[in-house]
Amino acid sequence: MDIFDRILANRGPLGSHSHYAHGYFAFPKLEGQIQPRMQFRGKEVLTWSLNNYLGLANHPEVRQADIDGASEYGMAYPMGARIMSGNSTLHEQLENELADFVNKPGALLLNFGYQGVVSIIDALVTRHDAIVYDAESHACIIDGVRLHQGKRFVFSHNDMASLEKQLERAKRLTDETGGGILVITEGMFGMSGNLGKLPEIVKLKEKYDFRIFVDDAHGFGTLGPTGAGTAEHLGCQDGVDLIFYTFAKSMASIGAFVAGSESVIEYLRYNMRSQIFAKSLPMPLVIGALKRLELIRNHPEYREKLWTVVRALQSGLKEKGFNIGTTESPVTPVFLNGEISDATALTFDLRENYGIFCSIVVYPVVPKGVIMLRLIPTAMHTLEDVQQTIEAFEAMASKLDKGLYSKIPSAAQTA
Amino acid sequence: MDIFDRILANRGPLGSHSHYAHGYFAFPKLEGQIQPRMQFRGKEVLTWSLNNYLGLANHPEVRQADIDGASEYGMAYPMGARIMSGNSTLHEQLENELADFVNKPGALLLNFGYQGVVSIIDALVTRHDAIVYDAESHACIIDGVRLHQGKRFVFSHNDMASLEKQLERAKRLTDETGGGILVITEGMFGMSGNLGKLPEIVKLKEKYDFRIFVDDAHGFGTLGPTGAGTAEHLGCQDGVDLIFYTFAKSMASIGAFVAGSESVIEYLRYNMRSQIFAKSLPMPLVIGALKRLELIRNHPEYREKLWTVVRALQSGLKEKGFNIGTTESPVTPVFLNGEISDATALTFDLRENYGIFCSIVVYPVVPKGVIMLRLIPTAMHTLEDVQQTIEAFEAMASKLDKGLYSKIPSAAQTA
Repeated sequence: MDIFDRILANRGPLGSHSHYAHGYFAFPKLEGQIQPRMQFRGKEVLTWSLNNYLGLANHPEVRQADIDGASEYGMAYPMGARIMSGNSTLHEQLENELADFVNKPGALLLNFGYQGVVSIIDALVTRHDAIVYDAESHACIIDGVRLHQGKRFVFSHNDMASLEKQLERAKRLTDETGGGILVITEGMFGMSGNLGKLPEIVKLKEKYDFRIFVDDAHGFGTLGPTGAGTAEHLGCQDGVDLIFYTFAKSMASIGAFVAGSESVIEYLRYNMRSQIFAKSLPMPLVIGALKRLELIRNHPEYREKLWTVVRALQSGLKEKGFNIGTTESPVTPVFLNGEISDATALTFDLRENYGIFCSIVVYPVVPKGVIMLRLIPTAMHTLEDVQQTIEAFEAMASKLDKGLYSKIPSAAQTA
Repeated sequence: MDIFDRILANRGPLGSHSHYAHGYFAFPKLEGQIQPRMQFRGKEVLTWSLNNYLGLANHPEVRQADIDGASEYGMAYPMGARIMSGNSTLHEQLENELADFVNKPGALLLNFGYQGVVSIIDALVTRHDAIVYDAESHACIIDGVRLHQGKRFVFSHNDMASLEKQLERAKRLTDETGGGILVITEGMFGMSGNLGKLPEIVKLKEKYDFRIFVDDAHGFGTLGPTGAGTAEHLGCQDGVDLIFYTFAKSMASIGAFVAGSESVIEYLRYNMRSQIFAKSLPMPLVIGALKRLELIRNHPEYREKLWTVVRALQSGLKEKGFNIGTTESPVTPVFLNGEISDATALTFDLRENYGIFCSIVVYPVVPKGVIMLRLIPTAMHTLEDVQQTIEAFEAMASKLDKGLYSKIPSAAQTA
């Protein structure tokens, strides 16, 4: 069968909704400066959908650094892959400052986080090795694992008994192949808000030989006494061998880095395909990252403010009887019961009638009959924003309970 | 065996040279504005190593657009993946202009080229399909192909008999599985400078059922009557189903796009993992790309100037007896005979004593005993630059012939 005929006959789990979702539920446009109140289709909405955790996106010093970087270097510099012609003193300075900040001996800048994770995994393992990874790992981890030609074992999300069972299997295999074991999980899971059980995993090293690679995209800046992330927060920064952090969340930019021992970082520097064969991070992003890092380092009150908002939102929702799952982080999921048509109707109602903009997650990411609304608090939100949102959620939940959303034809909402 | 012990015992093909190469042959720093004459370790060098083909990196209008974009939006905006919260009117406008420019009905912006190619391939094929790809494809194609769970068949570089043989095999397989065939190659190969035999491949569609995906990273802006790339240059833009173009070469930025039919682009928009699960291209890069595209569209003389330099360089080298392989594009490889120690010694000599900076490529990318120097001409180079370079190459080749470089201890050069 022709490849194009097939993909057009099956447009995929998200694509099959595009005829009514496009521009509203999918690919919406949030306009104006990045802050809690933005414009959506010409109306002001209170947004809870951006990972601007510390509010740096629109911080005056950040905005000025972004202008200064663009002004001095332009977006082109440096050109070429870092190993060929794309290196600079500022790239190296940023790496040193990042390594210091997360208290690891070495750090390697990455031109983009997603492909960075894929290539880190790819560079570390051979066909003789085994990967043992958490079932709810982010797509970039899954893609990296899929590149692996050796065996992979998945453990149930955050389930240490399951992990141990898979480690036993991996051990039996690698005893035969002579390979090693790489355990991969996340610091802070971006959907559920759960934290990876890093101390428990580190402790298992006493029993099994393996290395740990953690994706802490969401933990950077939001968790830990200094903001160094989930492992720092859980007191096991040293025990986690290699940690990936992105600039796309708290840092409010793009790019990423990976931190670990000097020798392993050096190995990655010379062996990661997506870095050796693709362009270096542009200089304005490097200069912007230096400024953002400085602000995170010098302003723990941004993180404290974030947590004030997080606590108010999460306790407020729980008091009103909402199920926010097992989150231990700023990510705040709200689980409701209903069909996809309810999900679109209530999201439409929240946006149009209550001015609340948040993301919806439905089947197949959550089970059929479950609706997940995901709220991302930031340091820029106020307690009044929290209050307004909880009231809107109460009103919405009451309508959902009464079955009012089921009476709206699902395709009519955005017409 | 512990994974880290193993990687430190085998530092990889490039990493094994890092003890003497780092900072000089690998990860060198070219400083100053991007133009032919830049600073390397405090000295001015004439650079032939940057894919700034049309000279846009340091064009005053480009530099101003980069400042304007950073000034109006900052590097953070928009936040989130495009499908969730990272869409904007300007992202859509850029897509429309890019589609028009390459004369395809649809275009999809990509947050980074490397992961874009990987995910395009991943999104298009199932385990029942077969991929048939050129043996010299770029690393990002190889990574995409490696994700493929179905059969893959590699054809010898630009060898149409080999391609047909592999198509026969792919046809036999997919007749059984019910899957389809995707042929992948490049427009302009960045190492050899060869062009993919696109018209010949398109013609094979009369005989076999398959779709063609072409990576034309280097062709965009440099080839074709309007600069739309290799397929336009070879008169088969319509016959190539899907074409990838990067912003990292002629556009002097980062980001990329893929162009094809509206329905296939729409499918990719809703099904590419690296786009659905990673942040959107920042607005200053979108605004910068709009300006760069406008300049490429309105200034064919940049492309003409590039080709004037290319022709002078390539004919000059050939007249002096240099082997520049089979290039049909601006990429100009110079093949010499010698060991890796000769390669480092002559590159050192060129940089330090002749002020010529170009990239070296050695085993395993080229066979043992072969040294490849790669020259990338741009529209900013002058005919005097060409003359100076050819003279330096003559002097260098004469020393190489006399065996003078073999007398220099290889590790001593950068000491």
